[in-house]
Amino acid sequence: MRRSERLVAMTDYFKENPYTHISLPFFVQWFEAAKSSISEDLDIIDAMFDQLGIGRLQTSAGAAGGVQYIPDYHMDLSKKKIDDIIELLEDPKRILPGGYIYMSDLLGDLKQLRIIGKMFGAAFKAYDVDYVVTVATKGIPLAYAVADVLRVPVVIIRRDPKVTEGSTVSINYVSGSSRKIQTMVLSKRSIQENSNVILLDDFMKAGGTIHGMVSLMNEFNATVKGIGVLAEAEDDEEDRRVDDYISLLKFQEVNEREGRIQVVRGNYFE
Amino acid sequence: MRRSERLVAMTDYFKENPYTHISLPFFVQWFEAAKSSISEDLDIIDAMFDQLGIGRLQTSAGAAGGVQYIPDYHMDLSKKKIDDIIELLEDPKRILPGGYIYMSDLLGDLKQLRIIGKMFGAAFKAYDVDYVVTVATKGIPLAYAVADVLRVPVVIIRRDPKVTEGSTVSINYVSGSSRKIQTMVLSKRSIQENSNVILLDDFMKAGGTIHGMVSLMNEFNATVKGIGVLAEAEDDEEDRRVDDYISLLKFQEVNEREGRIQVVRGNYFE
Repeated sequence: MRRSERLVAMTDYFKENPYTHISLPFFVQWFEAAKSSISEDLDIIDAMFDQLGIGRLQTSAGAAGGVQYIPDYHMDLSKKKIDDIIELLEDPKRILPGGYIYMSDLLGDLKQLRIIGKMFGAAFKAYDVDYVVTVATKGIPLAYAVADVLRVPVVIIRRDPKVTEGSTVSINYVSGSSRKIQTMVLSKRSIQENSNVILLDDFMKAGGTIHGMVSLMNEFNATVKGIGVLAEAEDDEEDRRVDDYISLLKFQEVNEREGRIQVVRGNYFE
Repeated sequence: MRRSERLVAMTDYFKENPYTHISLPFFVQWFEAAKSSISEDLDIIDAMFDQLGIGRLQTSAGAAGGVQYIPDYHMDLSKKKIDDIIELLEDPKRILPGGYIYMSDLLGDLKQLRIIGKMFGAAFKAYDVDYVVTVATKGIPLAYAVADVLRVPVVIIRRDPKVTEGSTVSINYVSGSSRKIQTMVLSKRSIQENSNVILLDDFMKAGGTIHGMVSLMNEFNATVKGIGVLAEAEDDEEDRRVDDYISLLKFQEVNEREGRIQVVRGNYFE
């Protein structure tokens, strides 16, 4: 196989298998090419991925040597893309009664969602993550987009137990803004003991839900390595129950009467 | 930029933007290359994608001419991969009280989920789809995996209205197996009139849920172009309320007492 063909096949393979250790002999056999040719291919791909701002190939030497693709998403690109999303969100037609914002279309738009996933993937790439954990329903798309980049399993906390989950662990927690007591349920099978997890949700105000997720993770002896929310609302700092998190967007003002939404970049960009 | 570099960048671009019309001048400008060189690049990529079984580049001539990547997933590859999934599912440890099967880990496993998405993407590639529609909660990962391939928005039907959805349309329907009356709710903003949709769910027994989804789509004047379920259960044909669907897996027998699960390929492979 010629180099040009190999480059197409290898680019596809890396894109399909991020964070996956691939031995050089695997490529040597697949393409019936010399190891030196494969190494040159890898250099070309690595340089181009770097130039595109989408990550690097990490090579390791020795008997167990090989290569893996670590996705990234350059900060410059992230800023440009988040500003596009901000423009989408500042449309006054999104304001719902009670000052809520309609965002379901954004979370349903694969193009935007993939970009959001890449940003969180870049933010959490240095973490050694075993699972991405979210809570039904709105957090699910976000969690999958991030897990797609980090290539770890998604675990979904439910609001109510379901027979198809098997035995579960549940906790009660107090929702930060409404002060209501709510329940979270997670299948016992879903997380192995002593795992590292990232928590993700679409929206955070007082942080009660995230706080509940942290408590539930304690029940599984899991270590919360990072917390990400797509959007946070301006809130009294003292009321907030979660300090250490990454947000991509921040709703600064939602004025229902005057039909004005003001959104700015989240703390990831600070 | 050299051809080798262009091929890496273009392969990445096509993978990131399936079903997207790209004009040749876009590539010409990006790479500062002659149109003839770009055409040769496209031929190389098209041939390699075809050989890998992951789709083709479709070129159109004329003033509005250009190219788009139509993903596919070869039937041979699909059969091999579905048999791997069947092996995973036939593990007796998955049997839950009542003869239910634990599948949440499969739907949380990005590698498997992506493959499943590619299969449905191939099955529905000739359809002119505007939305992929599913119902919370279990269908969501599947819907996203398919929408990622078809590159259309995901629309999520809920079991209960939520304030952040705005005004909604709701229907009541009878669950096929339990004969309980249930509710489905969908935001009015989520689907435009006269759209073409694909319905997806993780599991189908009597088909009551899918039947309810079809009714709800009627309320939006949407045309159901296809129905896909990851797994179907063996059921009395006469009880089934949905005839025309694609399944990837079929549970033939779940014997709780003897700890035996028998899974076969679904009707997509017939």
